[in-house]
Amino acid sequence: MRVGVLGARGKVGSEVCTAVDAADDLALVAEVDQGDSIDTLVEAGAQVVVDFTHPDVVMDSLEFCIDHGIHAVVGTTGFDRNRLDILGDWLGKSPQTGVLIAPNFSIGAILMMRFAALAAPFYESVEIVELHHPNKADAPSGTARRTAELVAAARRDAGRGPVPDATSTGLDGARGAVVDGIHVHGLRIRGLVAHQEVLLGGVGETLTIRHDSLDRVSFTPGVLTGVRQIADNPGLTVGLEHFLDL
Amino acid sequence: MRVGVLGARGKVGSEVCTAVDAADDLALVAEVDQGDSIDTLVEAGAQVVVDFTHPDVVMDSLEFCIDHGIHAVVGTTGFDRNRLDILGDWLGKSPQTGVLIAPNFSIGAILMMRFAALAAPFYESVEIVELHHPNKADAPSGTARRTAELVAAARRDAGRGPVPDATSTGLDGARGAVVDGIHVHGLRIRGLVAHQEVLLGGVGETLTIRHDSLDRVSFTPGVLTGVRQIADNPGLTVGLEHFLDL
Amino acid sequence: MRVGVLGARGKVGSEVCTAVDAADDLALVAEVDQGDSIDTLVEAGAQVVVDFTHPDVVMDSLEFCIDHGIHAVVGTTGFDRNRLDILGDWLGKSPQTGVLIAPNFSIGAILMMRFAALAAPFYESVEIVELHHPNKADAPSGTARRTAELVAAARRDAGRGPVPDATSTGLDGARGAVVDGIHVHGLRIRGLVAHQEVLLGGVGETLTIRHDSLDRVSFTPGVLTGVRQIADNPGLTVGLEHFLDL
Amino acid sequence: MRVGVLGARGKVGSEVCTAVDAADDLALVAEVDQGDSIDTLVEAGAQVVVDFTHPDVVMDSLEFCIDHGIHAVVGTTGFDRNRLDILGDWLGKSPQTGVLIAPNFSIGAILMMRFAALAAPFYESVEIVELHHPNKADAPSGTARRTAELVAAARRDAGRGPVPDATSTGLDGARGAVVDGIHVHGLRIRGLVAHQEVLLGGVGETLTIRHDSLDRVSFTPGVLTGVRQIADNPGLTVGLEHFLDL
Repeated sequence: MRVGVLGARGKVGSEVCTAVDAADDLALVAEVDQGDSIDTLVEAGAQVVVDFTHPDVVMDSLEFCIDHGIHAVVGTTGFDRNRLDILGDWLGKSPQTGVLIAPNFSIGAILMMRFAALAAPFYESVEIVELHHPNKADAPSGTARRTAELVAAARRDAGRGPVPDATSTGLDGARGAVVDGIHVHGLRIRGLVAHQEVLLGGVGETLTIRHDSLDRVSFTPGVLTGVRQIADNPGLTVGLEHFLDL
Repeated sequence: MRVGVLGARGKVGSEVCTAVDAADDLALVAEVDQGDSIDTLVEAGAQVVVDFTHPDVVMDSLEFCIDHGIHAVVGTTGFDRNRLDILGDWLGKSPQTGVLIAPNFSIGAILMMRFAALAAPFYESVEIVELHHPNKADAPSGTARRTAELVAAARRDAGRGPVPDATSTGLDGARGAVVDGIHVHGLRIRGLVAHQEVLLGGVGETLTIRHDSLDRVSFTPGVLTGVRQIADNPGLTVGLEHFLDL
Repeated sequence: MRVGVLGARGKVGSEVCTAVDAADDLALVAEVDQGDSIDTLVEAGAQVVVDFTHPDVVMDSLEFCIDHGIHAVVGTTGFDRNRLDILGDWLGKSPQTGVLIAPNFSIGAILMMRFAALAAPFYESVEIVELHHPNKADAPSGTARRTAELVAAARRDAGRGPVPDATSTGLDGARGAVVDGIHVHGLRIRGLVAHQEVLLGGVGETLTIRHDSLDRVSFTPGVLTGVRQIADNPGLTVGLEHFLDL
Repeated sequence: MRVGVLGARGKVGSEVCTAVDAADDLALVAEVDQGDSIDTLVEAGAQVVVDFTHPDVVMDSLEFCIDHGIHAVVGTTGFDRNRLDILGDWLGKSPQTGVLIAPNFSIGAILMMRFAALAAPFYESVEIVELHHPNKADAPSGTARRTAELVAAARRDAGRGPVPDATSTGLDGARGAVVDGIHVHGLRIRGLVAHQEVLLGGVGETLTIRHDSLDRVSFTPGVLTGVRQIADNPGLTVGLEHFLDL
């Protein structure tokens, strides 16, 4: 598989280049960044591109790729309903081409969310703890919020009521933030990177699912999974979880 | 649903009686133990029996139940290939009746094994740590061995080779026992009950799945799940995991 | 050592009786509860009493014990400044007698608090997570609050400023309650008993101290430690930590 | 305080330079490596040197420093009894000068070992789990072995017998390696860096002390602690723990 990278000199893109280069079954044929011509992709015979660039330029790049029948694996942010609809139209005219838009390429984070949702119907209690370095601006993290929504939906579907909680006295904030009825706690500790724990409990037992991301490169296996599967999945796919056989 | 319990005065059976009694949708109609007549089940109109008795008597009880069209949820041990074949024959003559044979009724343990197997293909490394009270006679635990086998099979199916391990010098036992190529470590600590952790790791991230069983009663939700679903699952089922929608 | 127990038929007192009885170096000589005469202690030759009774009666019992030169290990609550002063006066007239008043007999909880305070000066960040069953009424737990106060004091003594936290956007409660500048998070999960984790972090590393109390009997070793040391520690002692060689 | 670094261009030494430079109370006045003259230290007026070099050259460097009354904080390995005796002799002739030899500058690792030893007398059970990346050659780690020795010594001093363990059947290695009677387990997982957990347990409760080293730079606070205190501690000190107020 011949792979091109858009945003090849960025922090993320350069890690992608390294990972593609190291994979036996993939060939890195084009490294494109600001100032380079996107035509390089065609000249180099790229079959798949990986795009970690900027919301301002990603749509133009994707139109070019789809026009030329090049599959795309996209980590750039900013895809709202409108943009996804436009992509759908373009892909309708190039039915063999696949585009994967993924907000999160960490396989561990995706597995954690999936397992939490699968387990949720079986447990009376569930809470989420996310732990990050203290320079993070938002609390709770986006992944923790998303996990809470998925867990809450799984509980609703299973007919489960609210989580038990007899707290009647205490300090503000002691029980965390509440997202869709699920308590979420955010810790900020120097030395940590990005970590999350989902705790589920029933009478006499608990189940804990924990994801530790210790290094930025942890997203590269997810990108490679996308690259390897996109040719077999024409059309628009949103979320890497659809390419994991869970 | 009208439920009878065989082995009702045993340590496990009495917990089952308490749990059935407490469930709104179940009625405890017969409590049978040594010295009681099994005919009580029929007289009481039991639709399902739960059997936590002894390998010496369980086959006779099951023959009786199947003959009378009573479904059975069985936690008694000792079911080899031969016994399962005999059960299959009996059930062939009573096609509406269901029998569930389960070595493990802990939903948490089943989820842990299932999630470990689902995640295994995505990670280069995986190891298992089981932690129990120090009165336990065997190491590693049966659940840890079973988890190792399931994880090893999932890796083989995904084409994964051996786990990476550069250990070239050290002390005997430092890297644990090896089950099907998977390293398994057993801790024995006063104060603990029954706990297991599966650690999976790839470049820059780890995923940990942990089950803590803190009280013997943790198996009762699994038994009730079996009771509630057995009527809709005629024939022989081995393993509660088939009744969990995973 | 001849030991008497006041409140011997209570939930805690009866566990104390069992533990004293099982200890080779201690003899259980008197079990006193409501309706029994306290004179039994003298008749039985008790050298030490353990008191887990009620704030309404504990002062009368202690006056009796001190008058008779019987040492006391006290888990009953309700000792304010005024009561401690009165005890001090009584003990002044019986200088060989010792009284230990302890709000917490869990050695593990005491070690956790002590280690957290010892480690606090070395770390930029510290947060506390306490986890309990969902029937608990207060959040955060008293132990978590006390740990936060001890950690905050240790940081102040070491000249440490506030913990780093760049949170600028988020949901109410996401960062927990704040006790003396320390963030404290309370989880309520069915299946748990009483657990606490103190996380400390500096550049590139974290240190975690965790205490899990899985069974009510975990306080008995602390009570026995008090019983064995009280005779060598005449006068009033508040807090079991003074009898642990830390 | 004016600080010189020997081995300034090495992987560790360059991190030390960065950390000294960033500290308000320290001035980096000399960066010396192979090919540079050690006289630079004197010319630059260094009061303390940090040495992360090689066993072949460290003794010559230290003789020079002690001769010139420059304090030394040394992370270079290879100090046996004989070398320490020689250092002692040299320091005898320069009684105001201090030398710190430390095999481990991680404050977290030192605290973990210290707390484990302090807690050991109070618990019936204790085991050690160390977790590292799979490229590590030895198992168990040196820190785990050292922790086991310290814990074993603390148990002996407290009159504690062997840890309880009823294991009578199982697989080789399941119970780990045994160091001084303490079970030690080594895990090797891709994605991990260097981690260790000490689990202690008694009736109904457990205490866990865990150290996670996620980045190589975690040793620099320990080096700076040595630099700041060495002038007040003339003579030879072996082990950073003597400079931590525990």
